[in-house]
Amino acid sequence: MIIGFIGFGKVSQNLARLIDSEDIEFVTSAENRSDETIEKINSSNVRILDTFEDVACKADILVSAASPKAALDIARQYGKSANGIYLDLNNISPDTTSEISKCVDNLVDGAIIGKIDSENPILYVSGKKADELLFLNDFIKTIKVSDNIGDASALKLLRSTYTKTLSALLIESRQIARDNGLEDEFFDILALTEGDDFKEKSISRIENTLNNSKRKSEELEEIIAYFNESDLTMVKAALKKLNR
Amino acid sequence: MIIGFIGFGKVSQNLARLIDSEDIEFVTSAENRSDETIEKINSSNVRILDTFEDVACKADILVSAASPKAALDIARQYGKSANGIYLDLNNISPDTTSEISKCVDNLVDGAIIGKIDSENPILYVSGKKADELLFLNDFIKTIKVSDNIGDASALKLLRSTYTKTLSALLIESRQIARDNGLEDEFFDILALTEGDDFKEKSISRIENTLNNSKRKSEELEEIIAYFNESDLTMVKAALKKLNR
Repeated sequence: MIIGFIGFGKVSQNLARLIDSEDIEFVTSAENRSDETIEKINSSNVRILDTFEDVACKADILVSAASPKAALDIARQYGKSANGIYLDLNNISPDTTSEISKCVDNLVDGAIIGKIDSENPILYVSGKKADELLFLNDFIKTIKVSDNIGDASALKLLRSTYTKTLSALLIESRQIARDNGLEDEFFDILALTEGDDFKEKSISRIENTLNNSKRKSEELEEIIAYFNESDLTMVKAALKKLNR
Repeated sequence: MIIGFIGFGKVSQNLARLIDSEDIEFVTSAENRSDETIEKINSSNVRILDTFEDVACKADILVSAASPKAALDIARQYGKSANGIYLDLNNISPDTTSEISKCVDNLVDGAIIGKIDSENPILYVSGKKADELLFLNDFIKTIKVSDNIGDASALKLLRSTYTKTLSALLIESRQIARDNGLEDEFFDILALTEGDDFKEKSISRIENTLNNSKRKSEELEEIIAYFNESDLTMVKAALKKLNR
């Protein structure tokens, strides 16, 4: 079996490392790639083909993992050449997934939960062809959400809805506690019901959000745009909070 | 030592049960009490005095545990007669605690976290005299917050700020997941990072909040009134959410 990568960033690099099997060959192309990327390809177990067109034609599974912005262009350019499964891992919104499905035949919607280079990343997949990727469970935990294209990306967005709004709540309540000189006590008292790691986890979430507040705001905007038929009182407040 | 109770509801009943010591005698009064309460007093290990005035005079520790609304009246009526420590456990706002401190000499501000009849309730206390209650640790976990009257009740309010706003967030994100046909998957995916009991705990919080939404709204209003110098974007959104 041949797995082809379009884009050779963290996701592709780590998949090539995790999927460690004699029966699987990895391919990608150096076409228009930066020196840095080519170096990374050379130091991995991935064979280089002349063009991405070749990669798309040869791969049994074509993995598109470049960036959210590039996802649709890649699908338009190589989707029709892909003979096998086309797995999108660009961390895109369900709307983009739906656009992509128009120019790709055997699309599988994929979303990685947890950092790909963490100990236990999980690959969520949806779409009628998703079953054919469950063999990946031998290498990375792989869960099929449903037959519906868009469900894997919607699920990732749902997760973000909760975690990003929670971060905004943590930022606010920690500040109220500080304003009242009770920050340590606030974390201690909540640890009783929220778990011993409440403080550590909360501070990590707060700092991660404050240090990336522009990107987090954009993600919240995307959530608000996509789930616009639901009541989003809390999510909208979180966006307001981050923009303060 | 004599511990006197003004009010003999759940809190007093359970304290009398938990504080199991040969050296401690409990007293209260049946003055103007309902038949039901008198029955409860009779079936406990608490001696009945003629009046609450007697209770206040005789007690080394006078526990006021009636209701938030009655707290200030009780303090005005019996505060000056209390010769020992006056422990307020009426679940009041720090503002009321501060009012009470004007008519009580040896006030200790107390807040019980967790249900008093649960396995591990914790008594938080603050005030200069709070040290004198730390012997209660033999019977119920007792933590001194600080020397400041109001800090124990502020801490309880801070805890509520977080937990009640979190419940509003859970109500909203569960509904978005439902609207997208991904409720089970939503809980599953969050359990990966939030802990195995995420679903059970979240549903319990959601139901508890929805079933008591009027009271929860009032508590959020109290939080907003008390912490009015902090930014309360998330808390105000939670109130709006519950009032929908």
